[in-house]
Amino acid sequence: MTARLSIHGLQRQLVPPIRPKEVELAEDSEREVLSGQQLLERSKGKTMDTSKLAKRLAEAGQSHVLQYWDQLSPGEQAEMIVDLESLNFMEINNFFKTAMKTSGQNSQEKVDTRMEPVPREVLGSVTRDRECLKEWEEVGLRCISENKVAVLLLAGGQGTRLGVSYPKGMYDVCLPSHKTLFQIQAERIRRLEQLAEKQHSRKCCIPWYIMTSGRTMDMTKDFFVQHKYFGLKEENVFFFQQGMLPAVDFNGKIILEGKGKLSMAPDGNGGLYRALGTQNIVKDMETRGISYIHVYCVDNILVKVADPAFIGFCTLKGADCGAKVVDKTNPTEAVGVVCKVDGRYQVVEYSEITLATAEKRSTDGRLMFNAGNIANHFFTLTFLKEIVRTHEPQLQHHVAQKKIPYVNTQGQLIRPDKPNGIKMEKFVFDIFQFAKTFVVYEVLREDEFSPLKNADSQDGKDNPTTARQALMSLHHRWILNAGGHFVDENGTPIPAIPSLKDGTDLPIKCEISPLVSYGGEGLEHLVNGKAFQPTLVIDENGVHELVKNGL
Amino acid sequence: MTARLSIHGLQRQLVPPIRPKEVELAEDSEREVLSGQQLLERSKGKTMDTSKLAKRLAEAGQSHVLQYWDQLSPGEQAEMIVDLESLNFMEINNFFKTAMKTSGQNSQEKVDTRMEPVPREVLGSVTRDRECLKEWEEVGLRCISENKVAVLLLAGGQGTRLGVSYPKGMYDVCLPSHKTLFQIQAERIRRLEQLAEKQHSRKCCIPWYIMTSGRTMDMTKDFFVQHKYFGLKEENVFFFQQGMLPAVDFNGKIILEGKGKLSMAPDGNGGLYRALGTQNIVKDMETRGISYIHVYCVDNILVKVADPAFIGFCTLKGADCGAKVVDKTNPTEAVGVVCKVDGRYQVVEYSEITLATAEKRSTDGRLMFNAGNIANHFFTLTFLKEIVRTHEPQLQHHVAQKKIPYVNTQGQLIRPDKPNGIKMEKFVFDIFQFAKTFVVYEVLREDEFSPLKNADSQDGKDNPTTARQALMSLHHRWILNAGGHFVDENGTPIPAIPSLKDGTDLPIKCEISPLVSYGGEGLEHLVNGKAFQPTLVIDENGVHELVKNGL
Repeated sequence: MTARLSIHGLQRQLVPPIRPKEVELAEDSEREVLSGQQLLERSKGKTMDTSKLAKRLAEAGQSHVLQYWDQLSPGEQAEMIVDLESLNFMEINNFFKTAMKTSGQNSQEKVDTRMEPVPREVLGSVTRDRECLKEWEEVGLRCISENKVAVLLLAGGQGTRLGVSYPKGMYDVCLPSHKTLFQIQAERIRRLEQLAEKQHSRKCCIPWYIMTSGRTMDMTKDFFVQHKYFGLKEENVFFFQQGMLPAVDFNGKIILEGKGKLSMAPDGNGGLYRALGTQNIVKDMETRGISYIHVYCVDNILVKVADPAFIGFCTLKGADCGAKVVDKTNPTEAVGVVCKVDGRYQVVEYSEITLATAEKRSTDGRLMFNAGNIANHFFTLTFLKEIVRTHEPQLQHHVAQKKIPYVNTQGQLIRPDKPNGIKMEKFVFDIFQFAKTFVVYEVLREDEFSPLKNADSQDGKDNPTTARQALMSLHHRWILNAGGHFVDENGTPIPAIPSLKDGTDLPIKCEISPLVSYGGEGLEHLVNGKAFQPTLVIDENGVHELVKNGL
Repeated sequence: MTARLSIHGLQRQLVPPIRPKEVELAEDSEREVLSGQQLLERSKGKTMDTSKLAKRLAEAGQSHVLQYWDQLSPGEQAEMIVDLESLNFMEINNFFKTAMKTSGQNSQEKVDTRMEPVPREVLGSVTRDRECLKEWEEVGLRCISENKVAVLLLAGGQGTRLGVSYPKGMYDVCLPSHKTLFQIQAERIRRLEQLAEKQHSRKCCIPWYIMTSGRTMDMTKDFFVQHKYFGLKEENVFFFQQGMLPAVDFNGKIILEGKGKLSMAPDGNGGLYRALGTQNIVKDMETRGISYIHVYCVDNILVKVADPAFIGFCTLKGADCGAKVVDKTNPTEAVGVVCKVDGRYQVVEYSEITLATAEKRSTDGRLMFNAGNIANHFFTLTFLKEIVRTHEPQLQHHVAQKKIPYVNTQGQLIRPDKPNGIKMEKFVFDIFQFAKTFVVYEVLREDEFSPLKNADSQDGKDNPTTARQALMSLHHRWILNAGGHFVDENGTPIPAIPSLKDGTDLPIKCEISPLVSYGGEGLEHLVNGKAFQPTLVIDENGVHELVKNGL
């Protein structure tokens, strides 16, 4: 069942536009072992018999999904059958019941009273432990040079809020180079391999595991092929996909987004753990001798992929699980916080706590619960194996109320203006509770976290403009710290923090290829003592000052 | 001379559209004592003789301003003469020379090496000294009840960046009530008077001194008259105006923005101190028995006008001068920082420091220079009198490079795309250096600072949307902390920090009239234990839940 669930979406992508006059359904007896592809092949040229499927639906109380059956073309019927055959309705019903029960508990019994902040001794901080950073980074680089480190990218989400129909990693935030998020991350991996190789005089490789979903798999793979894996070796990039689940209404009834089409969505970034097992990813890591895995989310343009300092800190602490966090400075910021609940680490979502708790401060004036989760984690392979083998099935789905487009009884597509159903999701941080040695690593938001979530808008949060500006601001700072500076078109020096008022375009337009610098290193010989006029681009071909209109 | 400079702009507003055939210029001999109005009256019906004026211009090297003289209509000539007669060109030349000299020094010799952070002992902090807040507030309220506190509003700026032609205080950021910034501030004053009266059982008054400029005076006054001073007594609201100075090019030549019109701008918010003297404001304060003055800028929608805790802290510390600041959390945030330079307090502008200094951190991880200036100050009257009497003439103008529209030699108006000249400004914080006992009071940005500077735009900083959201978020928190909560249209509780993803409009639409609560107080009996559906408005007429479309 598991494999079929997770492969569901892919098959949707592969379905050819078949329009047979009569299509017969595959026998249900082999349902448990048939792949979607096999099902599809067997359904060609056969007369459809939906009785078994209808029975399964009836038993699960989901018969309503067939209410438009007679209005579907044979091709649409065939496609719908492929979808339905891949689902275990009783399991979905159970997911729903368990998730709603937990969700109901949470809203009644506030978690606040049981929360404790992260103690200082498990915390590493780039601002408070600066004297340790060099050592941590060296340890991390050594791990990388020993081929012990893999990175795992969570890229199964769709760019719905961003307003695009393709995977977020393919988004171009309009940097001077027009590099996509995927390319930026790939090049950071390449640079880091070079740094580790140089430091330890041996070839190494950081394998990249990319979790997609049914909706993003094909486009993601095609994009990598088309761009020759951005210079990485094909054999070191692995695509796998997380499962999909149908959206259901508040009574657990599956929602139709078309007369013959279920409303399907990925099962949350915590779908990772099920997919790790079903698709033999853990096994592949083991074969390669991987010990440490850096897991991160595709949408953060500043992400330090396989950050050696983070890995070094975690390994030196003997941690099996670590979370990179940023300081939550504003009590009402909508970010989950890493903390202890009943003695175990977890992420408490912003919506789960009271304002009084969010506003609590330590004597030093800092927010007590300030470890803002940014979906950026460290795991040992041993820990992940334990999770996949033992704990994954115990993880419950979280309930996310959503406005889900649906077809009404007249068969019209309705886009509701308030939540009408739920998506069931697991979260990647759901496994923190199982860690034996959990650590937290606090980094600076302006250096490491700028997620791309929304389309450009008036309130300007987490959108292409803020992502682009965050990256250019970081690279501007790298130039300054390496001894370079910027001048305007008259040759007048531009201050380090340029005025917002004098008409200077902010931020300074400046982009440094990850192939040249991973974290600001290696720029002195290129920029020290030099003055540059924006737009400045530094890449593997050298230092370029682009004339404004020549871009 | 002083009075005429500062009154210049007002006269521009008052000039009637006269179009006499022949206008004779007033004799220059009385130039030093004639007001603009007198000049104008005397110019009517007389033949113009510009020879004296031309001579003054020639002596100052500013003859070019008359280059289109022959192309002006008699009316335009008359208006131009009024403008020119009000200016002391030699003084302007001296301002320019001194300002450029200082400005040149600054850019060469970085201030960084001489900067020291604010020591803890002069710092009051709402997050680190919470146990003192109540006492500070009580002391401040007592001062208010004794009629010792005045507020002084800096409202001379024009809403150029905001994209409006009227004073910023008249701006409506589209709150449910559509109150303007002026009204919000007026009502905060009224509420604070009530609180002080109630606590100390005596009538009191907080006089409000409003500094406008030539460009904003009439509209501001008319607006207050039209709105009956928002319930304040007319005799307790004082309008005065700061001076205007011409913009000049990089060689000190006055810039024409029309063939007969100089490019004029207010002389910076530090123009306050000259105006305080020339317009007898200090004297008025003295007559009223004022001891403490809270000075703030019109554009901060969250401003706690005459904040009793701030006043209490400053008076208990025996300070003659205090600055309210917010934590600068990001090194490259474009905000000036309060610090010590050569042992004296000042604001170092963001453009004056290197990145290395901006990024310096204390051992506790905080930015070393984190006292972000928000143009929100405390002065004793004694200190202000000393400033006006002794120090004001020593204050030098700062140079702000600007893109200044100008008429070219063909008489066409050009809008340059890069800075082509400077405005000369004094800053309100220029007098910190003269303080004997200077203190700093650190408050939370989300509670007290959200300036309205820009029009709505993609990067979403300091605009009407962010201002509106900041106020509604604050009021939402007041409701929660007073024991109320919000529900959606189905009666489901909305979390304290609502989800960004579930379609809830953010922030919760909620507005509390300052007449009901100044800082969150006095709401328990209205909201405790109650559930509200946004939009919630609480005003002097009660608690209203507005139906979404009924707004």
